[in-house]
Amino acid sequence: MDIESYMQQVGTQARAASRAMARADTHAKNQALLAIAEVLDTERKPLAGANAKDLAQARNNDLEPALLDRLELSPATIDGMIEGLTQVAALPDPIGEISDMNFRPSGIQVGRMRVPLGVVGIIYESRPNVTVEAASLCLKSGNATILRGGSEAIHSNQAIAACIERGLQQADLPSTAVQVIETTDRAAVGKLVTMAEFVDVIVPRGGKGLIERISSEARVPVIKHLHGVCHVYIDVEADPEKAHNIALNAKTHRYGVCNAMETLLVAEAVADKILPGLAGAYTQAGVVMNACERGQDIISQAGFSCEAATEADWYEEYLAPVLAIRVVANIDAAMDHINTYGSQHTESIVTENYSIGRRFINEVDSSSVMINASTRFADGFEYGLGAEIGISTDKIHARGPVGLEGLTSQKYIVLGDGHIRQ
Amino acid sequence: MDIESYMQQVGTQARAASRAMARADTHAKNQALLAIAEVLDTERKPLAGANAKDLAQARNNDLEPALLDRLELSPATIDGMIEGLTQVAALPDPIGEISDMNFRPSGIQVGRMRVPLGVVGIIYESRPNVTVEAASLCLKSGNATILRGGSEAIHSNQAIAACIERGLQQADLPSTAVQVIETTDRAAVGKLVTMAEFVDVIVPRGGKGLIERISSEARVPVIKHLHGVCHVYIDVEADPEKAHNIALNAKTHRYGVCNAMETLLVAEAVADKILPGLAGAYTQAGVVMNACERGQDIISQAGFSCEAATEADWYEEYLAPVLAIRVVANIDAAMDHINTYGSQHTESIVTENYSIGRRFINEVDSSSVMINASTRFADGFEYGLGAEIGISTDKIHARGPVGLEGLTSQKYIVLGDGHIRQ
Repeated sequence: MDIESYMQQVGTQARAASRAMARADTHAKNQALLAIAEVLDTERKPLAGANAKDLAQARNNDLEPALLDRLELSPATIDGMIEGLTQVAALPDPIGEISDMNFRPSGIQVGRMRVPLGVVGIIYESRPNVTVEAASLCLKSGNATILRGGSEAIHSNQAIAACIERGLQQADLPSTAVQVIETTDRAAVGKLVTMAEFVDVIVPRGGKGLIERISSEARVPVIKHLHGVCHVYIDVEADPEKAHNIALNAKTHRYGVCNAMETLLVAEAVADKILPGLAGAYTQAGVVMNACERGQDIISQAGFSCEAATEADWYEEYLAPVLAIRVVANIDAAMDHINTYGSQHTESIVTENYSIGRRFINEVDSSSVMINASTRFADGFEYGLGAEIGISTDKIHARGPVGLEGLTSQKYIVLGDGHIRQ
Repeated sequence: MDIESYMQQVGTQARAASRAMARADTHAKNQALLAIAEVLDTERKPLAGANAKDLAQARNNDLEPALLDRLELSPATIDGMIEGLTQVAALPDPIGEISDMNFRPSGIQVGRMRVPLGVVGIIYESRPNVTVEAASLCLKSGNATILRGGSEAIHSNQAIAACIERGLQQADLPSTAVQVIETTDRAAVGKLVTMAEFVDVIVPRGGKGLIERISSEARVPVIKHLHGVCHVYIDVEADPEKAHNIALNAKTHRYGVCNAMETLLVAEAVADKILPGLAGAYTQAGVVMNACERGQDIISQAGFSCEAATEADWYEEYLAPVLAIRVVANIDAAMDHINTYGSQHTESIVTENYSIGRRFINEVDSSSVMINASTRFADGFEYGLGAEIGISTDKIHARGPVGLEGLTSQKYIVLGDGHIRQ
């Protein structure tokens, strides 16, 4: 296959489809989403067959069990995809929304209208259900999509792509509005992230390695989600029960997620009171603790095992039952620590003090900043976005959980009555 | 000078200053803006002296008169800079604005808070007043700025930088919040647009060549303003008087600006009625017309001179008293033309027909889309943004005229009362 001309064709088709998608009305887009859901439901057998090929090949290649797990299209995964499509169909259509329409002294009326970005490129790793998730959000927001999944999921993704195509046709939308790249050649990714004439934004979904690689190659804007070194700071005036519950939930609710707490900061004045109980709860949950000297002293004296944290621990995104703990003087020391070692993802303070809480909210520069709540809430569904294409650790365009709105832009509209500039 | 380590230092200082600027309250920022205005007023003599050096050197280098003109810091230019600072001080502070604060079913309260981007890099050509304009907008929006002006304005820019530094100090803000690069070495630009650890966004201000060069080198997001091939389409149901006035104003109000009309599209059914009068007015204004065959026929028969347009004319941003004219069948042909040859900057339709107007607004994918108004209104001041750092032809982050809001981002804030994720 000639990758260059293949990708050129994919890009040209996507650009053309994006014009039709931008004009598509809400009814047609919802109809397509529900039609795709229906086709997925009737095509469970061929989907399972295609997935079995990928799974067999993956087993031959000795893929890790966790990856095999993510690769599997179980009946429950397909149910989830259908449920997701139904949910996205039920979301309000962001396109065409007009806001801030005001008269100006010149007599013109100026406002903004929400419009699609155009063509969205999605690059993701093994989970084939991302194909449907990402396609549905792009479709609802009036964009055309080019999807490039992991090579180990190629058969599953192609089978899903066929279902999406049929759904689009049933709603009289261009079948090229969602295209899944048919080759596993790495050169196709290189072309996808550099063909700025056809692609308006790239959303990579995967590990830090994938995202760094894509960002360094890209000539198209990338909505990046690098990593989450999230902090909870327990302030001098924290309510001890809230502090205990939040620090426990933020670490142990789920481990392999970007909004899990990785470092716990505790004000010196309350460390003696707070840490022993927490250390007991962490030990019971099987969480390994790496603490600063003061923290280690308190935890050991309470009879729990605790390692000495090194400088490297403060930078670490463990994504595992491991926690770094540091005793700090006060809110300033806590914010200094977050500034130095954090990844600007999500930080929470536990405090009953109004002024301290207000300072934390105003001064901490992370995509989500919380008072008295678990970092685990940093999520598109929890925030009411309805769905999430990713979490952005960038500041440009979209920050934090990215929903439908992150896949749109706003143009200015001007209404006059023959107005000319004086 | 070791450019690498010099830029490293500039970047480190900017990042540190950006933290202080993000915390700076509205009063301190306004105080700094007004103090800078005052210093500029008292330092008129040294400013004129520095500018005289640049002007002398430019004359030695046989710079074009238009460039000399832009380089000059006349008393009126300085008045304009002072006036601009006063206006920016009077604008509402965008930082800290909290919006969309809502309770979620989980009990947490979620909203968004407007925050600065961090460090903004501005790269611009000869006009030294851009130094003050850009710095004032970045300052008001709580950002630190690194400015790199044209090498021909180096003395003027350094003198202005000294005034800005004194103003910042008077308001107790870090004097490194605005830094003007002290070297004319091109390598400094290369470093500026690639040091993503210190710079959050680059705003180039200048010709298409400058912007394309910077975009191709940059590893930091760029707010691009490429070019404006703006259209006016006179529809079958246009009011003839409005059509005449708008088409004349959009072309002749100013020539060298990006929101001037470059191509006039006229519906075939009204071309006979509209074009002769317009051709007379253009001829009187000294505008050279390049028209399609049909247009040329009508204009010549009316007794005015008109060249034959070539394919290249449809792509042209003349920035001069030259206009391309094309007779088209209807709104679909007009939108096809705009899609094919336009630059997605600004397009206007003249029509009294509700449905045609609505289609144009909904379907034309440009940063500004207008009905019955001159394209010359596409401007930050006219839109009520108060001031403008540039006009973006990108879709990501900011589109159209970019004011203070374009220099900000939004973070999520979450208020709880001990809430944990279930």
